[in-house]
Amino acid sequence: MGSGPLVEARKTATARAHSNIAFVKYWGNRDHSLRLPANSSISMNLSALHTTTIVDWNRRLGEDLLTINGKAAGEGTLRRVREHLDVLRRRFGMDAFASVASRNNFPMGTGIASSASAFAALTVAAAAAARFELTEREMSALARLGSGSAARSVPAGYVEWLAGSSHETSFAEAFAPPQHWDLVDVIAIVSREHKHVGSSAGHMTAASSALQPARVASARARIDAVKQSIMRRDFDRFASIVEEDSNLMHAVMMTSRPPLLYWEPLSLMIMKAVRRWRQQEGIAVCYTLDAGPNVHCICLASDAGAVSGRLLALSEGIEVMQSGVGAGAGVMPPA
Amino acid sequence: MGSGPLVEARKTATARAHSNIAFVKYWGNRDHSLRLPANSSISMNLSALHTTTIVDWNRRLGEDLLTINGKAAGEGTLRRVREHLDVLRRRFGMDAFASVASRNNFPMGTGIASSASAFAALTVAAAAAARFELTEREMSALARLGSGSAARSVPAGYVEWLAGSSHETSFAEAFAPPQHWDLVDVIAIVSREHKHVGSSAGHMTAASSALQPARVASARARIDAVKQSIMRRDFDRFASIVEEDSNLMHAVMMTSRPPLLYWEPLSLMIMKAVRRWRQQEGIAVCYTLDAGPNVHCICLASDAGAVSGRLLALSEGIEVMQSGVGAGAGVMPPA
Repeated sequence: MGSGPLVEARKTATARAHSNIAFVKYWGNRDHSLRLPANSSISMNLSALHTTTIVDWNRRLGEDLLTINGKAAGEGTLRRVREHLDVLRRRFGMDAFASVASRNNFPMGTGIASSASAFAALTVAAAAAARFELTEREMSALARLGSGSAARSVPAGYVEWLAGSSHETSFAEAFAPPQHWDLVDVIAIVSREHKHVGSSAGHMTAASSALQPARVASARARIDAVKQSIMRRDFDRFASIVEEDSNLMHAVMMTSRPPLLYWEPLSLMIMKAVRRWRQQEGIAVCYTLDAGPNVHCICLASDAGAVSGRLLALSEGIEVMQSGVGAGAGVMPPA
Repeated sequence: MGSGPLVEARKTATARAHSNIAFVKYWGNRDHSLRLPANSSISMNLSALHTTTIVDWNRRLGEDLLTINGKAAGEGTLRRVREHLDVLRRRFGMDAFASVASRNNFPMGTGIASSASAFAALTVAAAAAARFELTEREMSALARLGSGSAARSVPAGYVEWLAGSSHETSFAEAFAPPQHWDLVDVIAIVSREHKHVGSSAGHMTAASSALQPARVASARARIDAVKQSIMRRDFDRFASIVEEDSNLMHAVMMTSRPPLLYWEPLSLMIMKAVRRWRQQEGIAVCYTLDAGPNVHCICLASDAGAVSGRLLALSEGIEVMQSGVGAGAGVMPPA
């Protein structure tokens, strides 16, 4: 014991996954413990925002360890990651604890969700370190158990997460590669405050809104329409569906009990400006907001400079980040 | 002809009606021409905001005439009033044209709707001038044909407009007198811009939102609950229903095609502040917004000063008006 060769005591791999932004949103679960979503969703990965995670399955550890950006993780995050590692251990037949080191290339506390890229990178790195082969579908489904939207960060480019009705049937798959359409997400960061109500807790409240069933029932039509608009590169059609879907999710949020009002006054100012820029100036841009006040301004790459400039001129309180369409989650070569 | 006694050629009366603010909103019609609403609604009249209207049925006129605040009315307003006068002529068996002089005691163009008080005052004055006796129910139903929410300005105090299924069954009635509960509407005026999309046009778009059926289906429960909270003077319960109902209406508006986003950044700042004042400082205040950006802050009379002061301190862009609970529409003694 403890004297065997190092190669057997430790199994290590590094993986990277990108954040994603949803065009048809995930909000509410039909099964909370399996994170089976109330409806299918559509997203694109964000090339500029990624998490890189090293997993080291190590028999000499007495418990799982986790650092994020070089610092020991807080208790809540650690517990959630340990639960996910338990799931992965069972799937991989692994009996070691893991040391996990995760780094985001984007600043924490900007309201840019890191759980999607984090759980996708963790799942891919953990499987690779365990030398366990998985199809992309199963990898996506496994990532989903850690964080629903992580399912969408596994495939590359433009992605649909099929709601499914069981663990095996709820996974994401690409329907167009990153180079299919050169969209850019110009993220207007309006608040660095931490969310009062995180997404996981928020998903629990979705069913308390009288409006959630109608949002869910109409999601399939929006998914078909937004996929078609992406395949045809029809920006005007794309824009109207993306904004409608964002409004529908926030309509459910603000009519939940308790109500969740994620928009800030500055968010609303930007939303209205984005509509003016598109409708009155012909700039190919639309807005979408996740469970937070930051405004994702989705635009054609050729309009990204104009959108950034206008956002910065709109208010001193706005910071801007830009990202193109990202690759799928994957193993990194050893350093 | 033209030589008969003056008393036969002219029949004149003056009436006054108050504006009202809805706690359970009217949005969308089941019948546009009869203005039969999609759902019943609840409101209180506003004592401080009223329209005073003189109607003069005059056989010597060759057409209906209309002044508002001493000025000839614009074409759209004149057409709408003439259509309503046609309805009243048929009902009263009146064959003269009318000269109508209407005055609001509140400034125009503040986004405070005047059509409710205007059509209630017009209907009451026109009936009185025609020496035509009507029950309050029929007066309310007739006022509804001019402007839906005018039905609610006919009875006094706290009012329910029963949606009904025909002209005769769609009228408002009081369920508590003004003195039952001393609520005050502190109106935060955030924009003097004229509405881009008026209520009448907006009602037409309600059915295009996927969320409208769920709002309508759940309205009865809110009506029963808000009436009960008013009867019991239970402010906390009242506040949560009133804010939820306002959010539900704006959720429908912002998910209509085209989307209607009546909120301004300043509206959202006030909504969030009102929730803080109630939840963290214990001030008995809640918000509700009509088809415009102004925020009606409904509070106990004892908290009205605190609410006004806080609103004025919140931003230089906010002006404030205050009103208690108003009487019903009625004939004024001759000057």
